[in-house]
Amino acid sequence: MKLATLIDGSRDGRLSVVNRAGTHLLSAEEVAPSLQRALDDWEVCAPKLVALARRLERDPAAAEPLDARRLLAPLPRAYEWVDGSAYINHILLARRARNAEPPATLRTEPLVYQGGSSVLLGARAAIALPNSEWGLDFEAEVCVVLGDVPRGLAANQAAPTIRLLMLANDLSYRNLIPGELAKGFGFFNSKPATAFSPFAVTPDELGPAWRDGRLHLAMHCHVNGRQVGSPNAGIGMHFSFHELIAHIAKTRDFSAGTILGSGTVSNADARAGVACLVERRCREILEGGAPITPFLGVGDSIRIEMYDADGQNVFGSIEQEVIAA
Amino acid sequence: MKLATLIDGSRDGRLSVVNRAGTHLLSAEEVAPSLQRALDDWEVCAPKLVALARRLERDPAAAEPLDARRLLAPLPRAYEWVDGSAYINHILLARRARNAEPPATLRTEPLVYQGGSSVLLGARAAIALPNSEWGLDFEAEVCVVLGDVPRGLAANQAAPTIRLLMLANDLSYRNLIPGELAKGFGFFNSKPATAFSPFAVTPDELGPAWRDGRLHLAMHCHVNGRQVGSPNAGIGMHFSFHELIAHIAKTRDFSAGTILGSGTVSNADARAGVACLVERRCREILEGGAPITPFLGVGDSIRIEMYDADGQNVFGSIEQEVIAA
Repeated sequence: MKLATLIDGSRDGRLSVVNRAGTHLLSAEEVAPSLQRALDDWEVCAPKLVALARRLERDPAAAEPLDARRLLAPLPRAYEWVDGSAYINHILLARRARNAEPPATLRTEPLVYQGGSSVLLGARAAIALPNSEWGLDFEAEVCVVLGDVPRGLAANQAAPTIRLLMLANDLSYRNLIPGELAKGFGFFNSKPATAFSPFAVTPDELGPAWRDGRLHLAMHCHVNGRQVGSPNAGIGMHFSFHELIAHIAKTRDFSAGTILGSGTVSNADARAGVACLVERRCREILEGGAPITPFLGVGDSIRIEMYDADGQNVFGSIEQEVIAA
Repeated sequence: MKLATLIDGSRDGRLSVVNRAGTHLLSAEEVAPSLQRALDDWEVCAPKLVALARRLERDPAAAEPLDARRLLAPLPRAYEWVDGSAYINHILLARRARNAEPPATLRTEPLVYQGGSSVLLGARAAIALPNSEWGLDFEAEVCVVLGDVPRGLAANQAAPTIRLLMLANDLSYRNLIPGELAKGFGFFNSKPATAFSPFAVTPDELGPAWRDGRLHLAMHCHVNGRQVGSPNAGIGMHFSFHELIAHIAKTRDFSAGTILGSGTVSNADARAGVACLVERRCREILEGGAPITPFLGVGDSIRIEMYDADGQNVFGSIEQEVIAA
């Protein structure tokens, strides 16, 4: 099942089901007004949403044509947005790029940070850039939307808490990161609002590509219409989503609607390309002594998408343009 | 006006207005079902809530007696919980206690971290301690609940975005902090769920004690019934709430219901005592070479409260007991 959130003037938008081809949608307000409200009472709402999705699949032409510009993020605001950094190749390259040591617990304990979640961007939202010297970069990630997670949940119990998957564009101001991390309290100003894919999909929709708590599909990333990378999200994800869930739940509970990100998808094989610009810049430094690829500026555009074995654009495309703030 | 959230079986509880004496409450569900929903549409809801509060003040006996054990946190879940560290004396002592240098930008740029917000504890919620070696500590703080804050808001424009004030008990696992901060991504497992005061109050309720973006009242902190400190929250708060708001809004928007904390209240004058145990331990180390005061264990209790010039317990008391998990 695919879900989306339609702009309707409210803060949370209107929950809708989307057909597999991503061409049509049907309002689900008879089940729940918003995706958050459906997640709050998932056992009751999910079967009703599945029934709506089946009806839509049988007769898409009877439903509303889907216009991605009329969608908000599936969760336009969330109670929690936790972002991991599970692709070790990305950590190694990113730390090298800022002359920082990888943490001693690199392979034994997941690295996660708490992100801001009261304003989350839709897949077509423009990225307003107030200062080109901040070093705007994109980061393509897989993320999961969780049901209630009790403290102490073990990794081998975590799979049923995963309600939905989405893609994220976790934007970063690279040049604000070193100063901010030096203060010791983690990212804050260096992370503007994150954008999400048009659709949130249930794990069953992904078939065998979703296994072992990882999504085994290529993350296609384009800058200004040119492909910069297609790393496979199933390769190099050292900690699975199940392990990330167990890690975050070590000392507290999480309530339904928490979004948990994988961190920037990154393959050690350089031929896979990149899902963020800083990795490319780092490779340029290692090869030629200096970065060549600039960070994003006004007028640049990003496209992030993922296709399944049938050639379906699973989550719809994130397509954002950078504009002056 | 004082607001509280009554347990009613729902995730967000039922919004209620509370009389000034904190003895009676009146359901406000005719205005908005929850505090979040009132904050979503504050211009419409606030005048109606004020009218209800006036009716309650005139005839409290006609309303329901207030039982703090039946209250949730004013916001049992929030879209954002951002915690500052505006009392420089606390930073200096806390860093000294873990042999870390204060950041170079100590006096020029506020220190904030993003906290978890999908599960927030009520003022009487027990603190379940899974592991006594984690070094459980309390931290008494003032916090504000914001309306919508646009990116780039200046400090001198921030006052009108402050809708409500509350107290917080920002719990910490002190012994998990050094390892976590060494990883570079900030606090995560070291911060279990935060607890809040029974009441959230509008700034006008505080009279002249609320000025210059600071709350000039003493924070009374008790451990096991014995007072450990009464530092004045108006003294030593280097960055005001207005400056904290401008700092967090440097690179992104925030939507209504964001909670922003001051950080542990701390006065340089040691006679004021402490609003967390780590400061006391640090002073013991400096005086005698070793800490004497243990961190919190099962059976210990915390009380945090603030009285105004009329002797009113402004926010109600946070009273929590530590229990085995």
